[in-house]
Amino acid sequence: MLEDLKDQVLEANLMLVREGLVRLTWGNVSGVDRESGLFVIKPSGVAYDKLRAEHMVVVSLADGAVVEGDLNPSSDTPTHRVLYQEFPDIGGITHTHSVYATMLSQAGVALPCQGTTHADHFYGTVPVVRELTPEEVAEDYETNTGRAIVECFREQGLKPLEMPAAFQKHHAPFAWGKNALDSVKNAVALEVCSQMALGTWQLNPDANEIPRHILEKHYLRKHGPNAYYGQKKA
Amino acid sequence: MLEDLKDQVLEANLMLVREGLVRLTWGNVSGVDRESGLFVIKPSGVAYDKLRAEHMVVVSLADGAVVEGDLNPSSDTPTHRVLYQEFPDIGGITHTHSVYATMLSQAGVALPCQGTTHADHFYGTVPVVRELTPEEVAEDYETNTGRAIVECFREQGLKPLEMPAAFQKHHAPFAWGKNALDSVKNAVALEVCSQMALGTWQLNPDANEIPRHILEKHYLRKHGPNAYYGQKKA
Amino acid sequence: MLEDLKDQVLEANLMLVREGLVRLTWGNVSGVDRESGLFVIKPSGVAYDKLRAEHMVVVSLADGAVVEGDLNPSSDTPTHRVLYQEFPDIGGITHTHSVYATMLSQAGVALPCQGTTHADHFYGTVPVVRELTPEEVAEDYETNTGRAIVECFREQGLKPLEMPAAFQKHHAPFAWGKNALDSVKNAVALEVCSQMALGTWQLNPDANEIPRHILEKHYLRKHGPNAYYGQKKA
Amino acid sequence: MLEDLKDQVLEANLMLVREGLVRLTWGNVSGVDRESGLFVIKPSGVAYDKLRAEHMVVVSLADGAVVEGDLNPSSDTPTHRVLYQEFPDIGGITHTHSVYATMLSQAGVALPCQGTTHADHFYGTVPVVRELTPEEVAEDYETNTGRAIVECFREQGLKPLEMPAAFQKHHAPFAWGKNALDSVKNAVALEVCSQMALGTWQLNPDANEIPRHILEKHYLRKHGPNAYYGQKKA
Repeated sequence: MLEDLKDQVLEANLMLVREGLVRLTWGNVSGVDRESGLFVIKPSGVAYDKLRAEHMVVVSLADGAVVEGDLNPSSDTPTHRVLYQEFPDIGGITHTHSVYATMLSQAGVALPCQGTTHADHFYGTVPVVRELTPEEVAEDYETNTGRAIVECFREQGLKPLEMPAAFQKHHAPFAWGKNALDSVKNAVALEVCSQMALGTWQLNPDANEIPRHILEKHYLRKHGPNAYYGQKKA
Repeated sequence: MLEDLKDQVLEANLMLVREGLVRLTWGNVSGVDRESGLFVIKPSGVAYDKLRAEHMVVVSLADGAVVEGDLNPSSDTPTHRVLYQEFPDIGGITHTHSVYATMLSQAGVALPCQGTTHADHFYGTVPVVRELTPEEVAEDYETNTGRAIVECFREQGLKPLEMPAAFQKHHAPFAWGKNALDSVKNAVALEVCSQMALGTWQLNPDANEIPRHILEKHYLRKHGPNAYYGQKKA
Repeated sequence: MLEDLKDQVLEANLMLVREGLVRLTWGNVSGVDRESGLFVIKPSGVAYDKLRAEHMVVVSLADGAVVEGDLNPSSDTPTHRVLYQEFPDIGGITHTHSVYATMLSQAGVALPCQGTTHADHFYGTVPVVRELTPEEVAEDYETNTGRAIVECFREQGLKPLEMPAAFQKHHAPFAWGKNALDSVKNAVALEVCSQMALGTWQLNPDANEIPRHILEKHYLRKHGPNAYYGQKKA
Repeated sequence: MLEDLKDQVLEANLMLVREGLVRLTWGNVSGVDRESGLFVIKPSGVAYDKLRAEHMVVVSLADGAVVEGDLNPSSDTPTHRVLYQEFPDIGGITHTHSVYATMLSQAGVALPCQGTTHADHFYGTVPVVRELTPEEVAEDYETNTGRAIVECFREQGLKPLEMPAAFQKHHAPFAWGKNALDSVKNAVALEVCSQMALGTWQLNPDANEIPRHILEKHYLRKHGPNAYYGQKKA
């Protein structure tokens, strides 16, 4: 069942390790198959060097039930499910505790577009999602984590594929993209831009949003209708 | 004698290197066998790339005597022994001079729970253990190092498995856990949370303890009686 | 066509990865053949681990047309072309978003010669090139990026081989050299000196230009007419 | 000639790379044979991945002449020679531009003993050696670099094997030890302690010298007449 997607999700999870975004088992990537209404996600707490495609867990978008797999899915599975349901354009999700993006999450500091590295991936300021209330934590914590992200995007008028990441306050980043691999690339970009921000602010505490025309140029040359970065897809 | 435990302790020591927690020979891991009253520890000052299971030293909990092994045990062996005697729940101990946790030790700064990465491993603020007096240093230095940790935990009412680490002032961190491997994982978590703290405080000097309901949720979903993180153990 | 140069440019691009100067596909190196009026550059957006010599794209200096190659050249190709045209002494160009040099670019902070590591490569302060106007961004953005660098060097009276790098404001660094490999070495030197500057300024906010006689000594013992660093070239 | 020493010096140079203390060709290690009055040093500007034992250059302590070897010795050879002549107890020397130790050199900040990692290797504050005058730079620069280190140690009453490192102002660190390998270990310790210092001072600007009784304990348990760290040498 969904063997190709399992391979992609495995590969995306392993890329997290190669890119230095996870320590121990602190991270998970999933990918969705919109047609079948199923998504594939890493099992919970399994060491990356032992991870195989057959360990991937298949979960129903409709009710969150495990459809295939012998292992428990990631404990963050309900967060992924809400995001897939509410952000219909996205195809993959990455959650990590990568060091620099987690610093911004813990500090509750949003990441303005300080340069073109950021503009190549995120069309504006990456937001901080509010902390959950005691009630939201007590019941359906992971589902409410996803709902708070969705609420933030609705309130700020953000489009998920234009702003494919958010910092969860006191917690860590979530990133997403057109597919599993793309969500990992956005998680990498977020981590690097977060690291750059620490040094940029050390050097110049007033360094914030770059001029709008540069942000638009870089975002659109890579993601706009006339994008000319990379190779044309057949 | 204790061949399985030697393998585990060797593996845990090598994980220290893979995780970047040691340079040169600055670290050691041990594991205890409560039934026989013996613990197994790395030899002193031996390079990690030459370390084999047969180099591991077996030490008596009762009197600290070397029971098996041709090499001197780690010079920190008396510290490990005190911790095993006074913290009867723990099964493994890790001592390193990992860079970021050592910064907090040197600065004498305790680590509050700034985020869920911390809450997943440490149930509150990781304490700083006081410096030793000239008398405590002059005689039985390594034993007194362990006693100061125990004294700190008694005074602050901390339970060793809920707070599996401490910063020794002017020195470096100690971590422990249910077994040798678990103690290394806690040492990794301490190092990463220490690094995150430096950036978090740079971004927001007021960032300290996260709300209590989030700390409890994360700690308990992983370690509480109804934990649901990871795979059920058979 | 230009098989040796393609091999050199491939090797220089791969060195970027080994030296930790690129993440994902954020970087490109080119090398020029002055005799034929052609330069060889990395294709756009191709993963480094899949890069082969035959993927390299051959571009005409005269008109920027692709002369050989099945893939699109780097989107930064027009910037390279301007630099080759205006800086006739240089033989290779490297563009990266390496973390520390990008921090200085984002902060808009020039890098004074704080020590001999810098003096060994850069004969004075590495400049920040001004941001482009909306008009310059709207049309021929990448060409105008190169023109702004050239304008900066003309205004400051800098010689390209004595100052083989610049920070593009809000963007990232460009470096160049006698050939492709040399441009990568200068990019490495810029990255390391940028990292050193962050710590140097943290320790001593007044640390700036080293005494002129030390700067001259180090630059000239490596690059002057009586240079005695390294091995004599046959 | 001196084949064993060449192997040791090669191995020590390669350890620099493995330990992350050099980029490009910015570092060199030498080892001395006191009996023959010769020392062996890395050739100048040769890439580490191409370095073989037969490339090592043999130099006379008495007059600095190359006694064996087809390549130019490191441009820092005269500095090594002065140190061997003036510090008769040392057997190996390491010079690098390692990032964190170079930050302290550039900032002109001495490194106090902030913790036991430092005390295990350096018996007090690692000094900053003054900058050279224009006259000292103009003639015999590298020899005068060594003389300034020796002058600093005489003025501060430091013993080379108790304080096996120094920061050259505006330049970078030098370290030494009983032999080539030992000098690299001290260079590693200096780099790590320098990195720790940046974080320690960020967390606590008043963190300086640890209590004297802890410094002495750690230094002497490893280097004193009754040292008990490591394995007894046969």
